[in-house]
Amino acid sequence: MSKALSPFERSHTVSCAVLVLFIMSGKQSRKSFLACLSLLVFSISESSASVSGECLADADCPTLTAPEQPIPSPVVVDLATVPAQLLSLAKLSDVESGPGVTRLIFTDSDAAGRAYVRSLMEKAELVVREDAMGNIFGRWVGSEPTLPAVGSGSHADAIPNSGAYDGTLGVLGPIEAIAALKRAGFKPKRSIDALMFTSEEPTRFGISCVGSRAMASKLDAVYLDSLTDILNPDHGSFRNAALKAGYANNTLNTKDMLSQCSLGDYGAYYDSFIELHIEQGPELEEENLSIGVVTAIAAPAALRCSFTGDGGHAGAQLMHRRNDALIAAAELSSAVEKFALDTKSDDTVATVGVLKVGPGAINSVPRTADMEIDVRDIDGERRDKVVSKIISRGQEIAKKRNVRWSHEIVNADPPATCAPKVANAIEAAAKKLKLSSKRMVSRAYHDSLFMSEVAPTGMLFIPCHKGFSHRPDEFASAIDIKNGVEALALALASLSLA
Amino acid sequence: MSKALSPFERSHTVSCAVLVLFIMSGKQSRKSFLACLSLLVFSISESSASVSGECLADADCPTLTAPEQPIPSPVVVDLATVPAQLLSLAKLSDVESGPGVTRLIFTDSDAAGRAYVRSLMEKAELVVREDAMGNIFGRWVGSEPTLPAVGSGSHADAIPNSGAYDGTLGVLGPIEAIAALKRAGFKPKRSIDALMFTSEEPTRFGISCVGSRAMASKLDAVYLDSLTDILNPDHGSFRNAALKAGYANNTLNTKDMLSQCSLGDYGAYYDSFIELHIEQGPELEEENLSIGVVTAIAAPAALRCSFTGDGGHAGAQLMHRRNDALIAAAELSSAVEKFALDTKSDDTVATVGVLKVGPGAINSVPRTADMEIDVRDIDGERRDKVVSKIISRGQEIAKKRNVRWSHEIVNADPPATCAPKVANAIEAAAKKLKLSSKRMVSRAYHDSLFMSEVAPTGMLFIPCHKGFSHRPDEFASAIDIKNGVEALALALASLSLA
Repeated sequence: MSKALSPFERSHTVSCAVLVLFIMSGKQSRKSFLACLSLLVFSISESSASVSGECLADADCPTLTAPEQPIPSPVVVDLATVPAQLLSLAKLSDVESGPGVTRLIFTDSDAAGRAYVRSLMEKAELVVREDAMGNIFGRWVGSEPTLPAVGSGSHADAIPNSGAYDGTLGVLGPIEAIAALKRAGFKPKRSIDALMFTSEEPTRFGISCVGSRAMASKLDAVYLDSLTDILNPDHGSFRNAALKAGYANNTLNTKDMLSQCSLGDYGAYYDSFIELHIEQGPELEEENLSIGVVTAIAAPAALRCSFTGDGGHAGAQLMHRRNDALIAAAELSSAVEKFALDTKSDDTVATVGVLKVGPGAINSVPRTADMEIDVRDIDGERRDKVVSKIISRGQEIAKKRNVRWSHEIVNADPPATCAPKVANAIEAAAKKLKLSSKRMVSRAYHDSLFMSEVAPTGMLFIPCHKGFSHRPDEFASAIDIKNGVEALALALASLSLA
Repeated sequence: MSKALSPFERSHTVSCAVLVLFIMSGKQSRKSFLACLSLLVFSISESSASVSGECLADADCPTLTAPEQPIPSPVVVDLATVPAQLLSLAKLSDVESGPGVTRLIFTDSDAAGRAYVRSLMEKAELVVREDAMGNIFGRWVGSEPTLPAVGSGSHADAIPNSGAYDGTLGVLGPIEAIAALKRAGFKPKRSIDALMFTSEEPTRFGISCVGSRAMASKLDAVYLDSLTDILNPDHGSFRNAALKAGYANNTLNTKDMLSQCSLGDYGAYYDSFIELHIEQGPELEEENLSIGVVTAIAAPAALRCSFTGDGGHAGAQLMHRRNDALIAAAELSSAVEKFALDTKSDDTVATVGVLKVGPGAINSVPRTADMEIDVRDIDGERRDKVVSKIISRGQEIAKKRNVRWSHEIVNADPPATCAPKVANAIEAAAKKLKLSSKRMVSRAYHDSLFMSEVAPTGMLFIPCHKGFSHRPDEFASAIDIKNGVEALALALASLSLA
């Protein structure tokens, strides 16, 4: 879509550019970053009235045209609301310094984030419930409350030093979408839920999407108990952390906790599910498109492996007598990159995200190198071939270098196909709003990967700056956020009437 | 030297083999490791009476034959004493679990180690003083106390999960050597000092040999203040840590602290210095030799460098758009190994001892990779060439991979040549004790590297099992320890009379 910039868009573009340049300078403090973000939100607020005004006067403004239920006025999302909420949530970070957001699950900042999300749900007059592991549901009860509902949500936990949009947009967006539908006088038939999932990020416990896996009954209690809590490696477990955060205390054990979170058979609890998310890739921005309609979600696999040598003194141990765990890990890391590139497909990505070296002293030959490797592809078979190659190469390197090798496949989930009825609803909403869109795949995975086992599921992407994500300069513009939330509102409304 | 085993040596060999096999099994707890070590010490104690008895009846037993001062009885070191003391010191570790010793400078376990060393010095009736950074001196005052003294010492700090012998032998050995000389009725002309140096290991502050550098006036106050304290990265400094440990409180500032520790001009404080140490290499054991007479100490260099990319989401960021800091570091790590091997000399060693990856989450493309690289050679020029190659390759990799690069040479010390008079005294002592010996270089570096700028300096090596060091299964046998301490005693005595 090629479009001329409105006066507001011009001012907004300038603000964004200032913010991005500011972030790029790398010298900012957390305080000044947030001050700058506040300024941006303020400039948006100043402009938004006129934007809303324009829209009200525009005959092409979006209206809900469900066959049985006309909507009295357009569904309008204020330009400033969700960015301001994103800013509030970004301030709740485990680490004070720097512009990045760190919000590990079940920490104090996570608790504060939960309180903030619940307060927004309550303000929107949703019926709030939390399940045994802290998944939060805010329900707008429909005219036929016994029908399976329509859900929309994402996560608010954040990996160390990451951005303010990943997950959070999909938590806050649905609440505002529901508020906009209420303002527009819409009455849902099926209830509409705004959701916040627990522990999508694998940072603390090593496994992703704990909440949505539990809803989909795809998580084993013994396995969950076996995972290490990096904040409490000796005595921690997911259940212990949940208990400390005030959840799971009405459950007997981990198995019981998990079964209380299950949403039962496919389609029983939700009739459809949509996750709103920043793209985390560059395609929409580069192609100047507003909405991505996700048709498939790439299959993620996570691998943990270790090389163990005998260590030694960095001065005294001769080179040919060493079995250096780090050099083995370095060789495997280079191979991981090569195997991903070898498929010649953009859809294959492989990352050594974690490499921990022990004992970790400059004058000591590394004895241990513990790696965590992430491999994804929309082609599950091709992904599995890369995983196999990594394991084989690890074994070869270990043999050649006389180091010990161990590995564990933490997860190797299948790719998900999005439900046509949900994709169609999103596409129709974009069309009604005169927003450009395209169908695309999600290379990142999300709670939707598991929600697709609970109900017909789809995802709605909006552009993000240069595709940056999981880093402090992650950014989505206020207009793209407004567009995304309005499209989400229309799609939820139409699915609620289906 | 080829020799038949005595009954004691056979029993001792069996004990050692049990200990080594036990350590190799990798399943031991710290408690059972120490129990096993106690058993070994006990078995040595049982045998030592007869060994001492044999020696007393033996006409070839070592006696001091200084021209002016005959020694009334042989200088005999009990087989059990120093191993038992090493065991006591090994128990004072920052980390309770596992067999390894961790004793970072100025921690509680370091304080306990200091108290133990002072108590041994006091038991040996030495005059104890501690300088402004906690270097400990135990003086046996000679008959001409105004003459420059003879010194012998090493360090008791230990890198994470290392062994019980590195440094500690050279701290405890001189105290027992002095005790043996006292028992033998020897009277020194020059005073003899037993020393314990502060912070030889670079683990906590990034720089090695802080104590001996200060004695040699080779440490800049501004530089020392600039180093990061890994136990207190925000507000720590060496001086702050020293203050908390009870030192430096009679100094004005870091410069003042350092100048109070200086031992002045070459030869002014010490007329000679010897460091007793395990070899930390395999040569003596493989060649079945008892004593190594060190003629030169390899030149160490320490390099800190960082790659910084832009990070990103491990699923969404396409491979060709990445600038992954870890993959850059992996490539450099492999090159570091290659550059050391390329010199085709056993004397060149290069080690990536530290590699820290940020943000360090499996689903995040690494944004930062911070490395610490150790390069050593007895040929300073060849060492510097390897350092230069590493820096150039780092820059090339950074350019090729579009990551940012920074580096800092933390230290690049020259190699040290040992003083012939000290080497000769050690060699003569070994000969008198009928112990096999050879002249050799030290590939590891030690406080002696800096003491060689304070006084004529030499080192006395004893064998250690397979050359293992800086690891939990570091081991030196009781008989090799006894031989080393006796040779040290004779060498100190003869240098005291010079």
